[in-house]
Amino acid sequence: MNERSVRVRVPATSANLGPGFDALGVACTLYNEMTLTLTHEKGLHISARGEGAAYIPGDERNIVWKSIQYLLQRADRAEEFQGAKIRMNNRIPLSRGLGSSATAIVAGLTAANAIVGSPFSRDDLLQLATDIEGHPDNVAPAIFGGFTVNTVTNGHVECFSFLPRIFMRFVVMVPDFYLSTKSAREVLPSEVPMKDAVFNVSHAAMMVAALARGSEKHLGNAFEDALHQNYRASLIPGMFDVFAAAKKAGAYGAVLSGAGPCLIAFAPEHRKCTEEVAAAMQEAFLAHDVKARPLHLRLDTKGARVLHRKESSVKKK
Amino acid sequence: MNERSVRVRVPATSANLGPGFDALGVACTLYNEMTLTLTHEKGLHISARGEGAAYIPGDERNIVWKSIQYLLQRADRAEEFQGAKIRMNNRIPLSRGLGSSATAIVAGLTAANAIVGSPFSRDDLLQLATDIEGHPDNVAPAIFGGFTVNTVTNGHVECFSFLPRIFMRFVVMVPDFYLSTKSAREVLPSEVPMKDAVFNVSHAAMMVAALARGSEKHLGNAFEDALHQNYRASLIPGMFDVFAAAKKAGAYGAVLSGAGPCLIAFAPEHRKCTEEVAAAMQEAFLAHDVKARPLHLRLDTKGARVLHRKESSVKKK
Repeated sequence: MNERSVRVRVPATSANLGPGFDALGVACTLYNEMTLTLTHEKGLHISARGEGAAYIPGDERNIVWKSIQYLLQRADRAEEFQGAKIRMNNRIPLSRGLGSSATAIVAGLTAANAIVGSPFSRDDLLQLATDIEGHPDNVAPAIFGGFTVNTVTNGHVECFSFLPRIFMRFVVMVPDFYLSTKSAREVLPSEVPMKDAVFNVSHAAMMVAALARGSEKHLGNAFEDALHQNYRASLIPGMFDVFAAAKKAGAYGAVLSGAGPCLIAFAPEHRKCTEEVAAAMQEAFLAHDVKARPLHLRLDTKGARVLHRKESSVKKK
Repeated sequence: MNERSVRVRVPATSANLGPGFDALGVACTLYNEMTLTLTHEKGLHISARGEGAAYIPGDERNIVWKSIQYLLQRADRAEEFQGAKIRMNNRIPLSRGLGSSATAIVAGLTAANAIVGSPFSRDDLLQLATDIEGHPDNVAPAIFGGFTVNTVTNGHVECFSFLPRIFMRFVVMVPDFYLSTKSAREVLPSEVPMKDAVFNVSHAAMMVAALARGSEKHLGNAFEDALHQNYRASLIPGMFDVFAAAKKAGAYGAVLSGAGPCLIAFAPEHRKCTEEVAAAMQEAFLAHDVKARPLHLRLDTKGARVLHRKESSVKKK
């Protein structure tokens, strides 16, 4: 009988994008790669390189393995494949708001799905990944790529992914501290002023319209938010100053990436101003004694991909 | 010296569209037409035909006249034109959630602007109309036509108007009672659950993305709302049943039009189901003892228009 291998690549993501709190996201050209071999024998062999390799659990608690098992159960193949070899090579910084944990889940699901013959569509994988992650914010762009809008309606998750008609570069500033999504969630109120809700509904809608149709002039205020960044500002010294610096240096706008602490600026491709934007953001952070390094990224247009498939015959024990 | 005349046509509007509370709107093929003559002499002559003609003030309190004066002051032409002849022919039911008062303001501004040589752009008129109306929800689609997204950022109003890539017919049900925007606003809370805010942000963004890019399958849940309709349901007997009936009869969805009491259903052009949708909505209303008549409308793509310009020489007194 066979053991089967597959290699997958999953993009980093930035969720929220200012007004699109828990609704909008983008996939970025920074990747978590994984090679998965499913084995018929019990036993888990996990090796990790790259960002956060030292923190990745090598046993049953590993989120990639949990995701694989979840998919195999849903596909009714869990009896057949009882063990795995997982090799990870992750370039996405952990716990910084770039969706690294979502990429681990999506990598596990995408690889396992490919190995068992792709019974699940991307829409199915979105639902499975959301079951595991708890919300679709980061898993949606990680699966679909592009710019994503996601909704949850009576428990049913949907995602619409599109490629904006405005070409942008992303400047991500990675501060030298961590922030757990849990702490960043805890500072948010459970009730908000109606006027703040309306503010975000209208600005998120404006961003989507401007990007989908390519109206640069309507992006100027489209990254403004009233629902989450104000509450989280205390966790990230200098945040609003860094936003202002990015905008002054030529970006359309800048926002908190996911739950932070990374900040992401959206710079017009045609202005060729990413170096200036990065320098201005770095300097603004330094004025608040925060050291940060820039990542220069672009839009990932493909989402989670199977790179290479291999089926090797081995002797059955 | 001259007195000058102009004729304008302004479309009815439906604001909110479910999740897009205070943010989204559409212009409809139902019009308020007006002929304006500005005179150098003081004196106001107002005649009205059509919907609500009996209720339109014929004196200084008239909102059209107030809008005209506001524009003339901003254009620094108020000394020159001290009186007006206003002839209105309005087909838009009053106080039903179809933006009739917004059309009166936009008609006044558009006509006066044309007479003084169009010093103001449509973006300018949007700001002026919002100053008068208090919010841009209805004035934005009345001015621009099409499907509109509007934002207010630090008092600055913006509107992005586009023509959806999905062709729709509108079925508007007009119940036989009135509802003032004031009463419909009073039932809304000033604070709302964060999860309801997120629900509307994501669903409004989904609606805009689906319409702007033409993805029919993503419209199925896109008209769902959590921010205003639940609170207003008590004012409109049977509202949710009428929504359900419209959807069952083939509409993508149905929502409260503006602050109500009109309900509007969005039906796919290609399904040719508007008669069925109207009948189903009417029947569902009747089950709650509400008599309602249907209006069959389409998207107005042009917004407020100057139809005809006339400059007649008259003797200066």
